[in-house]
This record gives sequence, C-alpha cells and structure tokens, in this order.
Amino acid sequence: MKLLNPDFDFSAYFARIQGLVNGHLESIFLGFDGKRELIRAIRHSLMSGGKRMRPVLAIAAAQACGADASVALPVACAIEMIHTYSLIHDDLPAMDDDDLRRGQPTCHKKFSQATAILAGDALLTHAFWILSNLEDSHGKSGIGLEDRLVLIQNIAGAAGINGMVEGQMMDMQSMEPVKELSMEEKLSHLKTLQELKTGKMIQVSVESGALISGASREEFAALKQYAEAVGLGFQVMDDILDVEGDAKIMGKTPGSDSSMNKLTFPFLLGLSQSREFAEELTQKALDALSAFDEKAEPLRAIAWYITHRDK
Amino acid sequence: MKLLNPDFDFSAYFARIQGLVNGHLESIFLGFDGKRELIRAIRHSLMSGGKRMRPVLAIAAAQACGADASVALPVACAIEMIHTYSLIHDDLPAMDDDDLRRGQPTCHKKFSQATAILAGDALLTHAFWILSNLEDSHGKSGIGLEDRLVLIQNIAGAAGINGMVEGQMMDMQSMEPVKELSMEEKLSHLKTLQELKTGKMIQVSVESGALISGASREEFAALKQYAEAVGLGFQVMDDILDVEGDAKIMGKTPGSDSSMNKLTFPFLLGLSQSREFAEELTQKALDALSAFDEKAEPLRAIAWYITHRDK
Repeated sequence: MKLLNPDFDFSAYFARIQGLVNGHLESIFLGFDGKRELIRAIRHSLMSGGKRMRPVLAIAAAQACGADASVALPVACAIEMIHTYSLIHDDLPAMDDDDLRRGQPTCHKKFSQATAILAGDALLTHAFWILSNLEDSHGKSGIGLEDRLVLIQNIAGAAGINGMVEGQMMDMQSMEPVKELSMEEKLSHLKTLQELKTGKMIQVSVESGALISGASREEFAALKQYAEAVGLGFQVMDDILDVEGDAKIMGKTPGSDSSMNKLTFPFLLGLSQSREFAEELTQKALDALSAFDEKAEPLRAIAWYITHRDK
Repeated sequence: MKLLNPDFDFSAYFARIQGLVNGHLESIFLGFDGKRELIRAIRHSLMSGGKRMRPVLAIAAAQACGADASVALPVACAIEMIHTYSLIHDDLPAMDDDDLRRGQPTCHKKFSQATAILAGDALLTHAFWILSNLEDSHGKSGIGLEDRLVLIQNIAGAAGINGMVEGQMMDMQSMEPVKELSMEEKLSHLKTLQELKTGKMIQVSVESGALISGASREEFAALKQYAEAVGLGFQVMDDILDVEGDAKIMGKTPGSDSSMNKLTFPFLLGLSQSREFAEELTQKALDALSAFDEKAEPLRAIAWYITHRDK
C-alpha cells in the first residue's frame, strides 16, 4: 500500500480508535442500571468485539478534515449502536435465524426473542437521543445547530425506509423473480441491495465525520466518493471471504449450492473478477483522497484494509 | 363536563383533528412506492383507524398555547408513527402474540414476522427523520433550531431505554416476584410500569405541542401536570374498560382469573375505587388548566373524554 507517510502504523491506529469507541460505548451504558435485563441484553450485543468499522470510518473522516478524534466520537458511537440494533434484529429467528455471532450466542439465544426485539428498539432509539444531545454528551464539537439536525436526518435516512431497513427487506424477499433477470440486471439488483443494506450506513459514517468536523464543500464531495467506493468494496470483500471460508471449511466449490440461493459478487462475476472489482474500488477510494494530506492516512489505510483483510 | 365555552363540540373537534392527522400521515407515505412490501405493511398498521390520541393531544396542547393545529401536525404524526411501531412489535408472537388489532389482522399476520419487525423499525427511524426535518416538511413552525433538538431528545427519551421500551420489558417479565410485594408496593410497581409503557409518550405528546408553539415556562409547567394526570387516567380507564368488557362478554367476576395474571388498577383497588381514581385524575388535569382560556377547551374535553369513553 502506498501511503504519504510510510511510518503510519495502521494496526496501532485501528486498535487505538477501537479502544476509544469501546470506552465511549461503555461510558454511555454505565449511566444505566447494569442489572436491568434490557441493559444486559444491549451490552451483550454491543460490547461483543465488533470491528467498529463504521465508527472508525467516521472518526478517520473527521481527522482527515483536521478535527480531533474526540469530536466525532459520540456520533461514531450512535452509528455503531444503530449497526448493532440491525444485527440483533437480523439475527432473529423470523429473519436470518442465527444462533451465534462472533462466537457468542446471539441476543435472542442468550436472552429471549422479546428481549432481543426490545434491545434493538432501545439501541435505535437511544442512538437518536445521543445524536440530539451532542453538546451535552460532548461539549467540544463545534458543529452548528442546523448541521446537527442535518446529521440526524442523514443518519435516519441511511438507516430507514429508503436505506438499511429496505436493504434487509430485499435480502429477505424471494429470489424467484431475480432468477429470471439477465446477468447484468442481477448485478444491478445486487448492487442496489448492498447499497441499501450496508452501503448507505457506511457512507453516512464517513459523511457524519466530515460534517461534524466542518469539512469544506470540496472535502465533503471527495469523502462522499471515497465512502461509496469503500462501502461497496467492503461488501464485495465480504462475499469473497464468505466463499473462501465456505471452500476452506466445508470443501465446497465456490459458487455452488448455498451461493446459488443468494446473489453474491463471486457468484455473478467469479472469484477472480470479484477480487479485481474490489481492487478497483480500493483504487477509486484512494483516488478520491488525492487532495488530502497526511491527515487522511487512516482513511487510505482503511480503504486498503477493507479489501485485504482475511475476516 | 364544565367547559368555559358550553358550545364547544368535542366530537366534531376530535373528528376534524383525526382527519388532519390521517391526511398528513397519508401524505408522508405517498412519497414512497406503494407497491413496496415495506410501505404496504407500514400503511396497513398506520392507517387502520387508531384513535390518534397522542397526536390529538399534541395538537390540542399547541392550540392551548395559541398556535395553529398545522404547526404541531408533523410532530404529532411522528409521535403516532412511534406509537404504531410499538404496537406492531408488541403484537409479535414473541411478545403479546396478537392476531387482531382493531378487527384487522396484525402486521405479522397479514404480512410476515420479518416484515412486521422491519416495518416497526422503519416507522421508528422515519419518525426521527421527520423530527429532524421539520422546516422542510412544514415551513410554518416558528420553533428554533435548539428547541427542535430538544424535541427529538424528549421524544427519544420517552420512547427508549428509560421509557416505553423499558415499560414493555417490565410488562413481559414474570409476575412471580411482584406477587410477593405488599398491596402498596404492587400499586407503585403498576404505576411505574404504566408511566413507562404509556405515560411518558402521552406526556411527551402534550409537551411537544407546547414546545413547538413556543409556550411560556408557566404554560409548559401546567401542561406537564395536565399530561401526567391524563396519561395515568388513560391507563386506569383502559384497565376498567378491560374488566368491564370481560364481565360483559364472558360473565366473569371482575378481578378473577385473568386479572390475577396481570396487575391492573381494578384488581388492586377494586372497580369503584378505580373509577374514583380516574375521576380524581380528570379533575387534576382540569385543575392544571385553570390559567388557560377557551383555547384549552380541547384539552379539557380530552381529559373528560379519556375517563368517560366506552372503548
């Protein structure tokens, strides 16, 4: 990877920002009685070792625009809470029916379905409480009142009816009508699904970091391009890792059986072309940052990491 | 009922405001493709003939402070969307497992559990989108930017971890520990549960109407008292109507079997003392309005209606 500063240590950076995020999330929920079932369920899912990709992106974007990591921390954590709520609900038996996440029992397995539904609802609602309360939870942000409302609006837009929720709807729907489509139409369908399900929240993470740090119009536009490429790249790589994981663990041929039931990039493009596509997206993300100085090293490293990670 | 203006026609008023609310809710969802499953599920639950008690309270509070009904309409509708999301999730098999609501199949019965979970998630999220977007969705509100953030914060607070979601948690939890409590402790437990589950959202409806109309500090304090009394009165009356409905329909003795499994005011206080309590709360609500003029007639009529309705 070509960075402006060859000494930049991404692992150390990533670990440090993850630590900041985990600490701030802990502090948010220390304000509630930890014996309450609802709080226990929320903490079980929220503090179970996620990568914190979205908050790290928000913070790295803020830093690229010259702000301190701490300025973007509450927004970053609110976004992570929305991400966690979506995982809790997606794991429910009525949805993806997953028993495990990151090696731990899913929220409804550890507690109950009712508690999991409510823990998700509470996380989503509390994220908006935090977003509407930025000055109190974090006095240093210089963001104006109007921009705070824009922030809430953007995040609600990315998470809601025309964003993440609709993406999950598409993902739950029957694949029968999709099977009739041409290869090109299938690819377009998959891109739309991923854009809604994960892309928009990743984009809004970057945009929120830019907004809260008072980015210029040009910086904002560049970071938007970066975020689109990174969001899609993240999903393409997830699909690649899924297939490789399947092949490794179960000895299946990539693109076979289980992959047939869900549209994936490797299924549509093949594994090597998917890898090429991911590389292209990384390059696109890096190009979008061309006008940024060394303060954008974290964003550059994330773009590279996303398509070179092994989990 | 003693009103300042004996000619005030509450039925006509109620019907007119319900019409306004329904029209505005329709207009919000006309912006989305009505063929989408998610939008169909949302509209099924949102437009199925609810009483619109919370939005009517918000609008009546705004009017009591001298504002037009239209000023409070978007906020009122956002609150109704949050109320509807809570009904959709509460009806799920993992929660109250209800097949019917207002004579119609519940969202998960008509569509699927996955769709119902997502329709609720989308309604909750979109409510915050609307609240963060008040100036665009409705140009006439004179509310300042800071108050808009307070509005979001108050509503998120009433709906979330220390509000409605926790109330539903308490309602789902085993009654075994509660059975050990003294009568007085049981009554206190029940009041807390109702305060969380329905009280806070009813209170925030009134407070939002006051806030958006630029109420004075005195008006705001008076309306807060009004809202507390009305919120609790609403729930006491719900319990009374449940018991009377049971007695009428099934010939059961009020306070017997089914009432034993759930704490209710008639079970703890008896039916006639519960009625007295409801009357007391109505009086308390009316007293809180003593400094208001005829513009508070709708609020007075609502206080009376809540404890004199028959469904």
